[in-house]
Amino acid sequence: MNGAESLVNTLLDAGVDTCFANPGTSEMHFVSALDRIPGMRCVLGLFEGVVTGAADGYYRIADRPAATLLHLGPGLANGLANLHNARKARSGIVNVVGEHATGHLALDAPLTSDIEGLARPMSHWVRTVRSTGAIAQEGREAVAHAAGRPGQIATLALPADMAWSAVSEAPRQLGAVREPAPAATEQAAVIAAAQVLRNNGGATLLLLGGRAVRARATEWAGRIAAATGCSVMSEFYAERIERGAGRVPIPRLPYAVQAALDVLSRFDHIVLVGAVEPVAFFGYPDKPGRLARPGTTFTTLSTHAQDPAESLQMLCEELGALRVQPLRCQPIVPSAAHEEGPVTPASIGTLLATLIPENAIVVDEAISTGRAFDQTTRDAAPHDWLTNMGGAIGFGLPVAVGAAIAAPDRRVIALEGDGSAMYTLQSLWTMARESLNITVVVFANRNYQILKGEYAQVGAGTPGQRASNMLSIDRPALNWTGLAAGHGVPACRVTTLGQFADAMRRAQAAEGPSLIELLL
Amino acid sequence: MNGAESLVNTLLDAGVDTCFANPGTSEMHFVSALDRIPGMRCVLGLFEGVVTGAADGYYRIADRPAATLLHLGPGLANGLANLHNARKARSGIVNVVGEHATGHLALDAPLTSDIEGLARPMSHWVRTVRSTGAIAQEGREAVAHAAGRPGQIATLALPADMAWSAVSEAPRQLGAVREPAPAATEQAAVIAAAQVLRNNGGATLLLLGGRAVRARATEWAGRIAAATGCSVMSEFYAERIERGAGRVPIPRLPYAVQAALDVLSRFDHIVLVGAVEPVAFFGYPDKPGRLARPGTTFTTLSTHAQDPAESLQMLCEELGALRVQPLRCQPIVPSAAHEEGPVTPASIGTLLATLIPENAIVVDEAISTGRAFDQTTRDAAPHDWLTNMGGAIGFGLPVAVGAAIAAPDRRVIALEGDGSAMYTLQSLWTMARESLNITVVVFANRNYQILKGEYAQVGAGTPGQRASNMLSIDRPALNWTGLAAGHGVPACRVTTLGQFADAMRRAQAAEGPSLIELLL
Repeated sequence: MNGAESLVNTLLDAGVDTCFANPGTSEMHFVSALDRIPGMRCVLGLFEGVVTGAADGYYRIADRPAATLLHLGPGLANGLANLHNARKARSGIVNVVGEHATGHLALDAPLTSDIEGLARPMSHWVRTVRSTGAIAQEGREAVAHAAGRPGQIATLALPADMAWSAVSEAPRQLGAVREPAPAATEQAAVIAAAQVLRNNGGATLLLLGGRAVRARATEWAGRIAAATGCSVMSEFYAERIERGAGRVPIPRLPYAVQAALDVLSRFDHIVLVGAVEPVAFFGYPDKPGRLARPGTTFTTLSTHAQDPAESLQMLCEELGALRVQPLRCQPIVPSAAHEEGPVTPASIGTLLATLIPENAIVVDEAISTGRAFDQTTRDAAPHDWLTNMGGAIGFGLPVAVGAAIAAPDRRVIALEGDGSAMYTLQSLWTMARESLNITVVVFANRNYQILKGEYAQVGAGTPGQRASNMLSIDRPALNWTGLAAGHGVPACRVTTLGQFADAMRRAQAAEGPSLIELLL
Repeated sequence: MNGAESLVNTLLDAGVDTCFANPGTSEMHFVSALDRIPGMRCVLGLFEGVVTGAADGYYRIADRPAATLLHLGPGLANGLANLHNARKARSGIVNVVGEHATGHLALDAPLTSDIEGLARPMSHWVRTVRSTGAIAQEGREAVAHAAGRPGQIATLALPADMAWSAVSEAPRQLGAVREPAPAATEQAAVIAAAQVLRNNGGATLLLLGGRAVRARATEWAGRIAAATGCSVMSEFYAERIERGAGRVPIPRLPYAVQAALDVLSRFDHIVLVGAVEPVAFFGYPDKPGRLARPGTTFTTLSTHAQDPAESLQMLCEELGALRVQPLRCQPIVPSAAHEEGPVTPASIGTLLATLIPENAIVVDEAISTGRAFDQTTRDAAPHDWLTNMGGAIGFGLPVAVGAAIAAPDRRVIALEGDGSAMYTLQSLWTMARESLNITVVVFANRNYQILKGEYAQVGAGTPGQRASNMLSIDRPALNWTGLAAGHGVPACRVTTLGQFADAMRRAQAAEGPSLIELLL
């Protein structure tokens, strides 16, 4: 058994059975090991941002880590932006990065770079294998970090000679690494939160983040709200919101600073459940970075190390609200009116709500077009909604790939701006190759539309000719049917709500991926 | 004047008048400054790897740095792989990376990351602006590093508040930063090299790298070879080889280790001119990393801090060879036979040699298909040949963009493998937008063909089913005419040498870019 085989065996034993890969020469022994060791599903991406983003999407749905296989420092570098997003989403990932053979490093060959230095800003744990005997232990340690509560980014550099050299013994079979049990909710925190809610429920916000926006947690939050009159919201970004008809409505904080300030100005108290004090995405010259009204008090009910469903249930019990009926989203009855009228962000969202199938996974990188989707799709059939936690563009299509691999029986809908979809469009090829049930919708406004708003927000005034040239992507117009077909994904272009609805229905009835370009 | 305007003025004053950009919110004041300050050509890329690769290509042709404009840590991260290539090519680049407003950093907003940590592995110089008063000086210092001899990667993080705040005084106009004059060639080095060549010219290799492969340097190298019987070669990778008919033939060292070992086994002595001891691209289990025969002696004539043309001329003079006639490449007479027969790497190269127009710039990321091009295109009309110095894939299309911006009157030909072209295919859009005279040729073998060879080289045997799946990209087949059209670039697919020749002639007669997919 060589080192590569030892690592593959270790990963499999620890419960990591999916590997998103873009290998090169230094990873050939790892690739070769896959032939001899059954059980690892290896999914090829044509660009590393696809690979790391897919691992993020996989974790969000599977609640356990996948591995990535990346080629040296530049391969890792290409995957860093989506590792940033994954880190902010608390997704666990084991990155295996091939490194030059130990003796080769001293020669400063062209591909030599500082892999650990590159990995560190986006990783919680970084290690380079220094002896074949250590591979099994280090591989397992990497999985333990990735499968932590919350998940972590673990990056293991594997020098080529460590991969090809013999190991003296097979790795011990220690069994799957499980996510650690949550820390117990502190009774004192429950009592403190209950006191805030009893004293002044109407001026209190229950702010949810992390797994507090899963349905088993929001169910209790809804009862607490019904009993105390408090408001419930989620952070603007959330890795996976379980929402839709029959569930408790949990509006997201707005992205725009002024809108968030307005919403939060109503509250004297904020109870945090897996959430942190809300801050603006960017700093602006004349606006605060902290979004809560000065003087707002914060009470932390529980953190990501704890189970938010448990802590909310305890709070609910403390408030005597276990049997209170929460407000629930009511199913929509689709009508012909949904498919009529002009194409606007609002009308798209309202229509979309009728088209999201039950148990779908929606990946949202619609940026400016999707700004109102939180409100307009609230009452769709029950589904998961995944947003970009790190703000690095190019998140949506890769995350859709990973989500679809993790849940082959669910429909994935990727909502994309045309600007954002371009960063990792190679994802389309992996969707076709793996025949993933993904419907990609590209909202083609042919602008970096969000930047036109941000331009004014930062006080830069109105863009002139040269600035506008940096904010528009209409010259030439991207042709998404061509781009999709080039990657092997069938596609169509639509311009009306009716056409969009028809295309969505056709896409969802078909096996495999398809792409709809909605011209705005 | 605000900080962003101060920086734009500083860059322009220092001679940096081209900026490859993919901006976001934190860069809006820089973008806005472009409206008020004329003179900066800003070129938009839809992905940051396009932006940094274009800056590399620009430097290689212009011999002076361009700037890049990147959005926070993740934007920089997406550009790192091509910064790695640029660094290895000794290209000078000034990266301007927007950073959160200083006060916003403490809030750990989603896009917060360690920009300096990300920049350091691929930069020679990294700085974050801490006061508006320092912007002009730091901007100039960045240009000084980028325009050094050799060029450097200088990364300046510009916090948004530094960009939007007023500066107390306009930057002083200090004029263009020029590349420093070369250090003088050492007479002792000339004498030592001459002695080696006189004693045993036939067993000596003059190994050229960096600017020693420009025509004004190779001219002297050719005379030295003619006078002493030594061999002349270049390193396998070279940032810009001036070659073709009428010039001295300078074969490149082979990529494959065994072939390089065989070539170098003939030599007792190697004289290095802007080159270093040759090493293998990768380490292999049963092959040495150092390619020269053990016992080979090395003599350094000059380094990148010196002028190789001067040092070679001095050596030539020392050898009394100033008037010796060198061997020169002889022009090819195109014939119908060039366009007949099966499509093979050899027949493509032989045909290509007849199709490269005079003064063209060829960017070579053809990987396995291009392995024989060095030999087969040797006698083409005089042209520049640019290769990947860092080995990070995704180099070719962006470098072609930058080269075309630097030399609008020259035809650029980008030779790409289908695998490699996928990493930064968004480059096609910038080619269309700027109407660049670039002919892209994609050699579609639908494999990571090079890895099939490497697989055996590293001793992994023959790929089985699962390993083959990681090395083939034929399922689904990429359709390059669709991909190109999607980006606004006209394209065609050809399958015979005759069709290829016709398509090349059509492409070169047209204004703007086009793409030819040659099916192998």
